[in-house]
Amino acid sequence: MSSEFNLINDFFSSRQSNRSDVILSLGDDCALVQAPENFLIAISTDTLVAGTHFLSTADPALVAHKALSSSISDLAAMGATPSWCSFALTIPDFYEAWLTPFCDSFFKIANHFGIQLIGGDTTKGSLSLTLTVQGFLPKNKALKRSGAAIGDWIYVTGNLGDSKAGLSVILDTALRKHPFAKELERRHYLSTPRVLVGKMLLDIASAAIDISDGLILDINHILERSQVGASIDVSLLPVSPELIKFVGCISRAWKYALSSGEEYELCFTVPDQKKKMLEQRLVHLGVKVSCIGKIKQSGIFQLHNQGKLLNWTLDGYDHFKVKHE
Amino acid sequence: MSSEFNLINDFFSSRQSNRSDVILSLGDDCALVQAPENFLIAISTDTLVAGTHFLSTADPALVAHKALSSSISDLAAMGATPSWCSFALTIPDFYEAWLTPFCDSFFKIANHFGIQLIGGDTTKGSLSLTLTVQGFLPKNKALKRSGAAIGDWIYVTGNLGDSKAGLSVILDTALRKHPFAKELERRHYLSTPRVLVGKMLLDIASAAIDISDGLILDINHILERSQVGASIDVSLLPVSPELIKFVGCISRAWKYALSSGEEYELCFTVPDQKKKMLEQRLVHLGVKVSCIGKIKQSGIFQLHNQGKLLNWTLDGYDHFKVKHE
Repeated sequence: MSSEFNLINDFFSSRQSNRSDVILSLGDDCALVQAPENFLIAISTDTLVAGTHFLSTADPALVAHKALSSSISDLAAMGATPSWCSFALTIPDFYEAWLTPFCDSFFKIANHFGIQLIGGDTTKGSLSLTLTVQGFLPKNKALKRSGAAIGDWIYVTGNLGDSKAGLSVILDTALRKHPFAKELERRHYLSTPRVLVGKMLLDIASAAIDISDGLILDINHILERSQVGASIDVSLLPVSPELIKFVGCISRAWKYALSSGEEYELCFTVPDQKKKMLEQRLVHLGVKVSCIGKIKQSGIFQLHNQGKLLNWTLDGYDHFKVKHE
Repeated sequence: MSSEFNLINDFFSSRQSNRSDVILSLGDDCALVQAPENFLIAISTDTLVAGTHFLSTADPALVAHKALSSSISDLAAMGATPSWCSFALTIPDFYEAWLTPFCDSFFKIANHFGIQLIGGDTTKGSLSLTLTVQGFLPKNKALKRSGAAIGDWIYVTGNLGDSKAGLSVILDTALRKHPFAKELERRHYLSTPRVLVGKMLLDIASAAIDISDGLILDINHILERSQVGASIDVSLLPVSPELIKFVGCISRAWKYALSSGEEYELCFTVPDQKKKMLEQRLVHLGVKVSCIGKIKQSGIFQLHNQGKLLNWTLDGYDHFKVKHE
């Protein structure tokens, strides 16, 4: 048997117990699975490339966390419950010292979210990972980008901006001296997919997206799809004390919060009449959620500080513009 | 809107009409699809890397054909009917001259097989493609690698060996002078996924696999999974007249047929009592199918020429051993 097959077998097989809906897993031409009746399947594919999405020298355990968490975050943004994933790994050569911590971390997260690895491919080439994740949704209940309406409130989960600050630490070794550098770098990699929040929002939110390219770019996807505008009060943006200290002042922290990519927090809109229901449910979830603005008519996009309009120019994250090598 | 998103929108959106089971396609965090009741979903993921699976200078239309056909071939090998696919493309830069013929070819094959592109990701990096394809299967009817039993007949579809010959032409420019060089190179890229044969075999074959690594390696997967052995009469191997002329003699052509990877023909086993049913059905399909041997008890693996045992050493295709750059 060839080295390629051995590699796949040794590192990815028999690491998880079978879900009852997985009829056949790794080791045949296809995996065989069974979807539950009266549910839709949500499917998302993401690629992470060394040199573009992470440094090739990055801790493989952190890379695994980032890869799988960012994919599960797409399921969370639709309100889906994770079920299966396929994983394509391209590596320059067989590196056991890389694969062992990568797989340990990968399966830890997979097991935590009840998502089973059902198939994949291992090939020789520049280091990159492509994940296709699948999950279930009750019919007619998906959180889409297209449902926001004028007057809806705009919310985000967690804190924003830390991921961008962590990335700057990764890219600029001079910043590593900063007292919070290590913690922010850790937060860049270790996002928490908001699966429970997404599920809870299924009958509450009018639209949702996960923040992968930066709040401004991602909220724009909601606005375009829903044909509406928005007004955001930057003073309501959730930023960590560590971020404020790292960037030096609160207004810089807000700019980070608006443009920071790879946060994998949710941004969602809620009709006014469901605001109370949301707040009641949040008490039980223990996840920080902040109301940062309101949906307006199409054509309007306002950033303001407690009513005072701002004229900031901000970029989101775009792999074809930003490259960190 | 950033260049990355424009790229995805322009080349991959609105190229296909929606299948009725695709509720939401490209443009949200996830695609949403609905599986039919009483069917299983077959899922396969494959990566093709420039420099390993194809030359970076290869015709993008041929690369698209190879990528999608090889993935659909995995569905065919289980007897599944193709339905959806997700496509992750990593490219060094935005090349319209590459993307246009690639996408034209990609969607031509997708439409031919009724498979809809439902999502994907475009990233910057070394050229590589990862496809996850999905298809449907009636419950309890999948063609697996594990069902071969002693006494079953071993079959293959089409001709074998042309793909390896075509690859040698691609890798060695000196061979391009050969009269059949161009045709064999074409055959290397332009395989035909045996979807109809796979479906027809659902209640006939005891085991099946598609030939991606070479007949010897792939049939070994059946033998291992089924815990059986095999005897193959090389004189029954289907080889093209062009291959025989290209390699110079019939016994070299047989060796090519045994070791040629990326054929995407099916190899399958049929119980003796279903041999007649198979032959009757084949009349209507118009696909060449050859009986090349028999399943034996575990531990036996014989290659013979009309009864005369052969002692050939052969390699299959392994990306970690063979690299064509």
